[in-house]
Amino acid sequence: KEDDMVYRKTIYDHEDWNRHRCNRRHMRHMLAIATSRVVAGLLPPVVRLTMVASVIVLYNIFLTGYFPCVGILHVSSLPFQLAAPALALLLVFRTNASYGRYDEARKSWATIASRSRDMARQAVTFFRHPADASLLHHLLQHLIALPYCVKDHLTREDDLRKELTDIVKVEDDDLTAIMSSTHRPNYVLQAMSYIVHSSRISDMQKAVLDSNIVSLQDQVVGCERLFTTPIPLCYTRLTSRILVVWHLLLPLALWDQCTWITIPATFLSAAALFCIEEVGVLIEEPFSILPLSTISNTIRSNVVTILQQHQEWSILRNGL
Amino acid sequence: KEDDMVYRKTIYDHEDWNRHRCNRRHMRHMLAIATSRVVAGLLPPVVRLTMVASVIVLYNIFLTGYFPCVGILHVSSLPFQLAAPALALLLVFRTNASYGRYDEARKSWATIASRSRDMARQAVTFFRHPADASLLHHLLQHLIALPYCVKDHLTREDDLRKELTDIVKVEDDDLTAIMSSTHRPNYVLQAMSYIVHSSRISDMQKAVLDSNIVSLQDQVVGCERLFTTPIPLCYTRLTSRILVVWHLLLPLALWDQCTWITIPATFLSAAALFCIEEVGVLIEEPFSILPLSTISNTIRSNVVTILQQHQEWSILRNGL
Amino acid sequence: KEDDMVYRKTIYDHEDWNRHRCNRRHMRHMLAIATSRVVAGLLPPVVRLTMVASVIVLYNIFLTGYFPCVGILHVSSLPFQLAAPALALLLVFRTNASYGRYDEARKSWATIASRSRDMARQAVTFFRHPADASLLHHLLQHLIALPYCVKDHLTREDDLRKELTDIVKVEDDDLTAIMSSTHRPNYVLQAMSYIVHSSRISDMQKAVLDSNIVSLQDQVVGCERLFTTPIPLCYTRLTSRILVVWHLLLPLALWDQCTWITIPATFLSAAALFCIEEVGVLIEEPFSILPLSTISNTIRSNVVTILQQHQEWSILRNGL
Amino acid sequence: KEDDMVYRKTIYDHEDWNRHRCNRRHMRHMLAIATSRVVAGLLPPVVRLTMVASVIVLYNIFLTGYFPCVGILHVSSLPFQLAAPALALLLVFRTNASYGRYDEARKSWATIASRSRDMARQAVTFFRHPADASLLHHLLQHLIALPYCVKDHLTREDDLRKELTDIVKVEDDDLTAIMSSTHRPNYVLQAMSYIVHSSRISDMQKAVLDSNIVSLQDQVVGCERLFTTPIPLCYTRLTSRILVVWHLLLPLALWDQCTWITIPATFLSAAALFCIEEVGVLIEEPFSILPLSTISNTIRSNVVTILQQHQEWSILRNGL
Amino acid sequence: KEDDMVYRKTIYDHEDWNRHRCNRRHMRHMLAIATSRVVAGLLPPVVRLTMVASVIVLYNIFLTGYFPCVGILHVSSLPFQLAAPALALLLVFRTNASYGRYDEARKSWATIASRSRDMARQAVTFFRHPADASLLHHLLQHLIALPYCVKDHLTREDDLRKELTDIVKVEDDDLTAIMSSTHRPNYVLQAMSYIVHSSRISDMQKAVLDSNIVSLQDQVVGCERLFTTPIPLCYTRLTSRILVVWHLLLPLALWDQCTWITIPATFLSAAALFCIEEVGVLIEEPFSILPLSTISNTIRSNVVTILQQHQEWSILRNGL
Repeated sequence: KEDDMVYRKTIYDHEDWNRHRCNRRHMRHMLAIATSRVVAGLLPPVVRLTMVASVIVLYNIFLTGYFPCVGILHVSSLPFQLAAPALALLLVFRTNASYGRYDEARKSWATIASRSRDMARQAVTFFRHPADASLLHHLLQHLIALPYCVKDHLTREDDLRKELTDIVKVEDDDLTAIMSSTHRPNYVLQAMSYIVHSSRISDMQKAVLDSNIVSLQDQVVGCERLFTTPIPLCYTRLTSRILVVWHLLLPLALWDQCTWITIPATFLSAAALFCIEEVGVLIEEPFSILPLSTISNTIRSNVVTILQQHQEWSILRNGL
Repeated sequence: KEDDMVYRKTIYDHEDWNRHRCNRRHMRHMLAIATSRVVAGLLPPVVRLTMVASVIVLYNIFLTGYFPCVGILHVSSLPFQLAAPALALLLVFRTNASYGRYDEARKSWATIASRSRDMARQAVTFFRHPADASLLHHLLQHLIALPYCVKDHLTREDDLRKELTDIVKVEDDDLTAIMSSTHRPNYVLQAMSYIVHSSRISDMQKAVLDSNIVSLQDQVVGCERLFTTPIPLCYTRLTSRILVVWHLLLPLALWDQCTWITIPATFLSAAALFCIEEVGVLIEEPFSILPLSTISNTIRSNVVTILQQHQEWSILRNGL
Repeated sequence: KEDDMVYRKTIYDHEDWNRHRCNRRHMRHMLAIATSRVVAGLLPPVVRLTMVASVIVLYNIFLTGYFPCVGILHVSSLPFQLAAPALALLLVFRTNASYGRYDEARKSWATIASRSRDMARQAVTFFRHPADASLLHHLLQHLIALPYCVKDHLTREDDLRKELTDIVKVEDDDLTAIMSSTHRPNYVLQAMSYIVHSSRISDMQKAVLDSNIVSLQDQVVGCERLFTTPIPLCYTRLTSRILVVWHLLLPLALWDQCTWITIPATFLSAAALFCIEEVGVLIEEPFSILPLSTISNTIRSNVVTILQQHQEWSILRNGL
Repeated sequence: KEDDMVYRKTIYDHEDWNRHRCNRRHMRHMLAIATSRVVAGLLPPVVRLTMVASVIVLYNIFLTGYFPCVGILHVSSLPFQLAAPALALLLVFRTNASYGRYDEARKSWATIASRSRDMARQAVTFFRHPADASLLHHLLQHLIALPYCVKDHLTREDDLRKELTDIVKVEDDDLTAIMSSTHRPNYVLQAMSYIVHSSRISDMQKAVLDSNIVSLQDQVVGCERLFTTPIPLCYTRLTSRILVVWHLLLPLALWDQCTWITIPATFLSAAALFCIEEVGVLIEEPFSILPLSTISNTIRSNVVTILQQHQEWSILRNGL
Repeated sequence: KEDDMVYRKTIYDHEDWNRHRCNRRHMRHMLAIATSRVVAGLLPPVVRLTMVASVIVLYNIFLTGYFPCVGILHVSSLPFQLAAPALALLLVFRTNASYGRYDEARKSWATIASRSRDMARQAVTFFRHPADASLLHHLLQHLIALPYCVKDHLTREDDLRKELTDIVKVEDDDLTAIMSSTHRPNYVLQAMSYIVHSSRISDMQKAVLDSNIVSLQDQVVGCERLFTTPIPLCYTRLTSRILVVWHLLLPLALWDQCTWITIPATFLSAAALFCIEEVGVLIEEPFSILPLSTISNTIRSNVVTILQQHQEWSILRNGL
């Protein structure tokens, strides 16, 4: 079902791209239309508007058929023609602003992944003093826990405790501390900062690791900014209202040229334009669309790989 | 009332997003139309233009009905059709430029939040010398005071003294100094810089804290830039004038095809297009829309949490 | 007069924004139309094109009235309808590119303000050795002189000598050196660099101050880039030519449907579209629009405030 | 054949640009239309839609010719005229979003080239201790191997082993290690980091080289982000569906005015609009279009040239 | 002649801007139309398309005049009206993408100028040891040579040897080395790096100069990227093909309403739209348009001025 596809929160691979570019995609998209959650979501308003159109059409056909003195409900299409470009631009620009937010969110998470790898790579190199071994362990655990905490903060999927226990395997003390903090990502970042500054590494190395924490902090705040601040509500309401008024009056303009075809024409026009708006609203809050779980898991496996590889090399060198 | 919603200066949470994506939003927006302050704000010009349209329509109906020799006021719609795309683009691009400013302002405040957290986190780690304890206290107080001062500078809400006393709890001397300075955000930044350079921390640590002050300074100047420089006035005036002339002449073009429907058609066209322009003007100065109080309070609570957490850990370690 | 308003080179304050958002702004803009310098500037080409339209209309009315065998000058409106979106896009995109340049210029000057404040703040903290006192004085004087030199470089308003003497109060030697240099902003930057490197401050502090000079240098080069390189001339010429040809032929297309109304219709169409182009050309070179004097004065007063505040604090501390 | 041209993955030189700007390019493009793989790729959906149009036309001509009581299949063109700007914007904005991705990918690879050159240049200067000679050799080999590994990661062309053996000439141990790692680019980056930190160069020099690794890491993650995250699928599906529905119904709207010309008109309209969509889909995943092999080879030859030049100079100086 | 104006590769000064904003510019542009190289360049395809239009018109007038049974060649204009917005957007977006490249190229060269000045300023300050005097001389010579080498690399104007000898005055050895290197800008950058690291300045100073080389390297790679990678060819071909097909068929659509005016109408439509495309292609490779010679000369004179000023000051101080 497409439901799942929309919410599968896909990480694309080579197969997916081939399928994406395949010239049968149009047919596939048409066949999946009935199972699309986006389409299902916008049916109610579209159906309501189509019903208004039907009432107008029925009135024009029947009532005026029997009582010729009653006026037909119709207007000229000229005002619609003059306003059409403005409506189109408004809709598509709003969708584009939403896409800008989506892109920004995706870049923030890519930066989280990038900085986590840097931090892991640098930490395993810097923490050489034996007494720092447990600090390193703690640091990497918090580093792995961070994306899960950010994800939980942004989506409230309520499986953070399970993830921290099963996937990150944080210790019980840390788990309690993280779960009971008021702002978990911030707590984890401060804990990482504290671990770094408690260690025996040089000041310059501390500065390098700290700059990663600064960058991670930026991403957390950036994601929070996207989450807490939608596109100005007056813009969103404006688009929505113009769209509704447009389709309430459209049947009057179509009547002269389309008679009963006004009904399917209104339906299709509403479906198309409300769908553009719906997509704009859907990707405006990108975190429920982005595959945050997969990205978090990738970060975890990256950090683990870096640690294992480093230990392997250390053994090799010490073995020699 | 929508008034409040527009000016509620919202921080969105999960509930709000669900409501935002809900497919009954269109109906909600339509029902709230009567209470919308944006709509109320643009009624006067729209009503005036509709009255002009009514005069033209009445003239065409009555005067020419009695005195057939008098010419009907009407023109061809062709020039309007040719100019419609330019009008639409002009309006929507201007709104987009305003959105760009809104986005920039929001990012500036996110950076203020981010840098404040960084500075607090680093300061509690760096200021270890007992003699620096009071400096740290002063530094954090000024750090918390900064967003309130910036907010006051940008919005003149006149509650700065109260906020500094009740929320930030600055000491009386500092309060007097801040309130009597000519440019409060700049004063607070310089005070922070002075505190940092008066302390016993290392030169490298001073450099790290100073780089945060530099970044905060950038945001203050950035916000001031947005505030003091609107979109070029000639651009704004051009849009406004074309819009007015367009709607003054529109009834003449609509008459042939719409007769008395010219009046509601002019009304709706003016309402839609002036509303696009109104939204563009409203978000052009974003600081009266953005939830600056909430962001400032969040920054305060973040800094306080960081300090408490650090003290807790210090006690734990020293206790061992 | 609006002349003055356009060239008042405004720094907006709270009053201005209230006025800017006031719903009577449209009326104000319409009333000011006669005094607008933008409008006055584009009258000549618009009037010339309207005269061409009048000749065509008169020819069609009178000559063909007396000599029916002579053909009426008219064409179908179809080619115009097909080309209208391209014309609109071309115009509005060009205006948008100009706005991008305006925005960039404003950001450059904000960065100059920001870096000047940073440099002053850091310099008063770093220059503690008594033997450096006169160097500090020189450095700050050059720092204050910089924006005036950049402004003079970009606008040739020919009051630099007066400003340097009266406002910045540079010494006579320096004044001669600055005025006789081939590229004044570059000279001032090099002088600042020389002062910094002649001082007794640490290497790291020199590096910090030098990074500010690097950033100021970037802004100077950035402003020069905007000034020396317009939007590609072929783009500008293309827009201008298409606009002229369009309005030369427009009367032929309007004749069939508008008869004598062709004349005012051509006038209004030309006025609107040439005005969009005019605004695009006006803000393409943003330095004659931006309030550079006010920004320079603000920078001066910022630097002076920082110095005074620092001296006050030093006295306080030393007094204790 | 154009196939090859599309996939020649061109690096342009002066000849190509002259050809690109030559005023016979339009004719060349028209003649190559039959061999274009893009065009071939979108033939199936276009042909299918044209067949639907043919069925409608044939029905209207023949069936209604014999059975006049059967209704002709046709609708007014008005709804199409009102929706045309929205369709156009949707298509072109999507293509533009894809172009943004293409541009970003190209910039990432330019940064990889830039950072590789920096790293090589700095490494040959820093690694002066004789005992580090073999480390330098290893480092440069991994540096050369990196773009091939990234290319393999993004395109699965399955010639990595051959390239690493023949072009990069990595040693057998390294080859095995690289080929067996789970994420080859990450492995190579970690290996480079390990080599740098194992060497005898100063801490500051390590920091400089490390910052290059950080930047290379960013590019790898950036490319992966583009690869794993397409433009939101709901956006892509929306465009595709609107396009198909549009062309399914278009023949009905064209019939009244075009009769049998509806068939070629539908064909051309579908060809043009599907082609815009196809180009948008084609450049959405830019790595199969970009000349990654050529860029990788250039990086290799750059690094080799830097090493040779450095050795030449060293001999010169030591010889003196 | 405009030829020269297009290729004068202008650096604008105050006079030019006054002329640029002058309200007689439209007339000037119209008068220069005959000498415009852009216009001349696109005449061939436009003339060819006009000839096709003429054949169609002649066929419709004469053949069908004598043989009424032969069908007139004409189609409805409806499909053209529906596709016009898409064509306009496609053209203008492509031109905009080209403008983005132009802007980027100009910014790259501004950064080269900025970094060259920084490097010269810092080098004259850092190289104080008498034994480094000849290294400084070499470094500055290579710094001046760099923009000429980059220019030569990007435009193949074949006067590099002359410029290096006459303007930069490099020594014979260096000239041979530069001219015989495979990639001259890269060679010069590596030579600068080698000189810096051979000198007796501190490590921190080396790092500062090196960061300038890194930034210059970025610009060289950035310019190369723009040069070697055009806008995706499939995009360019698509625009060109749609444009040609559009104008091949346009006469059929215009015939019904325009008869013989179809010929000039096709000519003007083709001229306008092909001109937009031509401008997009012309500025896509910006290096043949940008005034690189002038920028290179400015950089040279900047560096020379910095050196002279520094020597003057040194003499002054040593004289005291």
